[in-house]
Amino acid sequence: MKYVIIGGVAGGASAAARLKRINEDAEIVLFEKGEHISYANCGLPYYIGDTIGERKSLFVQTPVSFGNRYDVDVRTLSEVTAIHRDRKCVTVKNLHSGKEYEEKYDILLLSPGAEPIIPPVPGHDLPRIFTLRNVADCDRIKANAVENLKPDAAAVVIGGGFIGLEMAENLQKIGYKVTIVEKAPHVLMPLDTPMAAIVQQHLKDKGVQVVTGNGLVAFEEKDGQMFVHLEDGTQLPAAIVILSIGVRPNSKLAREAGLAVGESGGITVNEYLQTSDESIYAVGDAIEFPHPVTGKPYCNFLAGPANLQARIVAMNMVYPESTPYSGSVTTAIAKVFDLAAASTGLSEVALQKAGIPFQTVIVHPAAHANYYPGGAPLSLKLNFSPEDGKVLGAQAVGKMNVDKQIDAVSLLIKHEGTIYDLIYSEHAYAPPYASAKSPVMFAGMVAENVMAHLMNPIQAAELDQLIKSGEEFQLLDVREIKEYRNGTIQGAENYPVDELREFLEDIPCDKKTVVFCEVGLRGYVASRILMQSGFDQVYNLIGGMRTYRLIGEYNVKPQ
Amino acid sequence: MKYVIIGGVAGGASAAARLKRINEDAEIVLFEKGEHISYANCGLPYYIGDTIGERKSLFVQTPVSFGNRYDVDVRTLSEVTAIHRDRKCVTVKNLHSGKEYEEKYDILLLSPGAEPIIPPVPGHDLPRIFTLRNVADCDRIKANAVENLKPDAAAVVIGGGFIGLEMAENLQKIGYKVTIVEKAPHVLMPLDTPMAAIVQQHLKDKGVQVVTGNGLVAFEEKDGQMFVHLEDGTQLPAAIVILSIGVRPNSKLAREAGLAVGESGGITVNEYLQTSDESIYAVGDAIEFPHPVTGKPYCNFLAGPANLQARIVAMNMVYPESTPYSGSVTTAIAKVFDLAAASTGLSEVALQKAGIPFQTVIVHPAAHANYYPGGAPLSLKLNFSPEDGKVLGAQAVGKMNVDKQIDAVSLLIKHEGTIYDLIYSEHAYAPPYASAKSPVMFAGMVAENVMAHLMNPIQAAELDQLIKSGEEFQLLDVREIKEYRNGTIQGAENYPVDELREFLEDIPCDKKTVVFCEVGLRGYVASRILMQSGFDQVYNLIGGMRTYRLIGEYNVKPQ
Repeated sequence: MKYVIIGGVAGGASAAARLKRINEDAEIVLFEKGEHISYANCGLPYYIGDTIGERKSLFVQTPVSFGNRYDVDVRTLSEVTAIHRDRKCVTVKNLHSGKEYEEKYDILLLSPGAEPIIPPVPGHDLPRIFTLRNVADCDRIKANAVENLKPDAAAVVIGGGFIGLEMAENLQKIGYKVTIVEKAPHVLMPLDTPMAAIVQQHLKDKGVQVVTGNGLVAFEEKDGQMFVHLEDGTQLPAAIVILSIGVRPNSKLAREAGLAVGESGGITVNEYLQTSDESIYAVGDAIEFPHPVTGKPYCNFLAGPANLQARIVAMNMVYPESTPYSGSVTTAIAKVFDLAAASTGLSEVALQKAGIPFQTVIVHPAAHANYYPGGAPLSLKLNFSPEDGKVLGAQAVGKMNVDKQIDAVSLLIKHEGTIYDLIYSEHAYAPPYASAKSPVMFAGMVAENVMAHLMNPIQAAELDQLIKSGEEFQLLDVREIKEYRNGTIQGAENYPVDELREFLEDIPCDKKTVVFCEVGLRGYVASRILMQSGFDQVYNLIGGMRTYRLIGEYNVKPQ
Repeated sequence: MKYVIIGGVAGGASAAARLKRINEDAEIVLFEKGEHISYANCGLPYYIGDTIGERKSLFVQTPVSFGNRYDVDVRTLSEVTAIHRDRKCVTVKNLHSGKEYEEKYDILLLSPGAEPIIPPVPGHDLPRIFTLRNVADCDRIKANAVENLKPDAAAVVIGGGFIGLEMAENLQKIGYKVTIVEKAPHVLMPLDTPMAAIVQQHLKDKGVQVVTGNGLVAFEEKDGQMFVHLEDGTQLPAAIVILSIGVRPNSKLAREAGLAVGESGGITVNEYLQTSDESIYAVGDAIEFPHPVTGKPYCNFLAGPANLQARIVAMNMVYPESTPYSGSVTTAIAKVFDLAAASTGLSEVALQKAGIPFQTVIVHPAAHANYYPGGAPLSLKLNFSPEDGKVLGAQAVGKMNVDKQIDAVSLLIKHEGTIYDLIYSEHAYAPPYASAKSPVMFAGMVAENVMAHLMNPIQAAELDQLIKSGEEFQLLDVREIKEYRNGTIQGAENYPVDELREFLEDIPCDKKTVVFCEVGLRGYVASRILMQSGFDQVYNLIGGMRTYRLIGEYNVKPQ
């Protein structure tokens, strides 16, 4: 059996290796357009930022070493330009010699990846504007970044996604003054506003300028100086620009061959990762697949799922319809200076778009036991179904143990787990690693309190709407007086929770009441006291002042 | 409704707080024998080792602050000496005044914890022999450790469990020369031999002496010098001794009151954590509960489950039979100098005892992307059912990300997950945090290869038995020649995997063949080549040389 594979990075190379391991007799030809195969593309920003010192460490395998180990005919600088399904062969262009030839296949695997989206604005093709997708891009950016670096040289990163933020950090690391431009209301759209706000504040604290809600209009070069023009008229000087507004699946070849391509532009595959032609399979960034939660096809552009698909597709290419793929719940993380920011499942925006009802809680627990040195808080947001408590998504931001929380929730979402499963989860606890209650357990407990109507949640944005509406309500800050004096929410009166029972008769119980504390726990205790003492409608501010301070509009200092 | 709670540490204090939050009208009296409630007992070894500098940071709440916040009548230094079930009251002894009185209850909660086991050997009551269970123990140990510290002062820790190892590290940190004595074949019995071997090697590298398979016989004091006598005649001098051979549930009070107590000595409870008396509940270290995997009752002595039980029992004490508990799969971790050692589910010993058939694999992947600086390998062992791939247990040891792997497996065991679920798990991947394939995913893949008969595993101990048996077989080291020359297994011939296909005709294919490499991956590739080239019985050494070097008996240097 002869297998031809198009694309030699995560999906293609992994599939070839697995194919050979399950079928030593397989004849495999692997075509890769670029010079390298099986390289560490998630490491490229860190090579640019000199965090990864040696270029050679980016290469997991060379074409020769890989070919030897797996007895695979690896042909780099070889672009497949057409698929002839009727004759079961592909046209290949040798990018070195320019010559074209045809190669026959019994089974074909498409793993062509994705390509960066270039916005069609004036000046988009100026020489110091780059996208980062492969080693060649990386080499170009690194060479130019070194060459253009002068004191106060500015870099502009267009697009505040995971890669944009990684590039911002790494460009600053080598000496640039960096501005991130994001058209959306905040960076990291897989995160909801309160979580992204923590990241944005951290970026600013680290000296990175963050421009949000402001789109790119044009690039311009005047007297050797490049400018980035934004919708609101801002002109940003830039010695170098990184375009990272997103990628699109490389599905052109498949489309031209008449294979089915879906709405999001990805190659359509069935659960066995087979395209609409039974002799052709596809994996990686080029495909779309139904999301396990929404049931709707989408492209996830993540390395983990691509590797898994490679393993699965190899089985199906040898034993047809043997191994189904179950889709990706989109679990991702990025380092942003001292923080990690991660998400899994669906954000509020994605849930609204999918028409899925949700409730949400935010907690700010310690990443490990408070009393053990070296700790730090983390913030965790949990989106769940108010009907049955099914976990729909989670996001975490903090200095440590962020990945651990998100991995746990990701696993639960895959198993259609609920907030109750989070409460009943068991984690490896010792003071250097965790608290006796893990952050996900804690978030699950808060969510359960909401589900059981032990607590009525109010989000920071909802509180601001309530204040704006002019509706009469009372706002109780249940923190200690010194915390209150340090800054509170406009109109709040201070009743420290530990003394609240003494003052119950002084507080009108027939009014809507919003209570809050620093993170939400004392607010919960206070709301329980009030709810069980005849107060009509009591709400606890989710995430407390720690969330409100970042995104609320009515922060004040009381006299 | 009047609730009386016996014990004010993890279980009792958490239950009181939750009780009050769900029922503001609850009248709660909390009795605690010691001086403190709700303290950080998992932090005690670190306070002794000066890692935690301030004693006050061990106290989460004081009796007064806790009493105020939750309107609970907290009575410390108050020992409950009897339960009178017929009159629904308890006898309480005020340890300060010595006076006794009775207190009535409607519902009683037992959370008395566990007590250290003191081996009945001669000299066990010598003054400088300590157990560590509470703040008073901790204060005594710390005072004595400071007082007895002289140059070359020796400390002996009896018992190499999690707490024994934490104490060993902390005593060394303040200046003692430490010896750990363990009667079992290795330290950390929740870990299997190959994993515990990594920890023991690390302890030795750090200068801690480890004595295993050698029990305590007696303590003796001669001329002001204490000696620890072991079974084999060894005498260890000791300025201070920590006894940490284990704990037993504090079920005496329950037993005397005629409540059912199980085989393992823990108080018997139903799924609502109710004892054999419907007005009496129990939680924490004092109870036994069926293990979700074996179905057999056992005591877990862990803080996480105690906290969860407290939350659950409070619900059941207010709303009877509302909230079932589902048991603990025993997930634990300890810091051992630079390593973390963690486990979840069942070890080989526990599986054998329970009569559950199992298969096992060991992997040694990178804790995060190899090319990103600051990484380190970790070792992960997965015990699973050879029948259906159900995950039965896992253990991990390494410098980072150990907790994350074990948390994921713990969650899966709770959901009766399989090795296939590990393969399909999605984790938050970026180079600073992980590899594209996570360690648990990777272990799942190796396990799948075993399940699918793509690879026949042989464990290090099995290989040693095979060598000893004198049975004819061939042993192939498929690493590079320079690795082979650095040390291999007696009788191994070197055929580097990337050249193996060229030498196939030189290797007899009708003999039993064992292949190995450094960690197992190249051995797997080699075994696939051989298995598909007419070789009869091919086995791959699980964990490769990295495991064999620690526990194998036939390590040699070839000429």
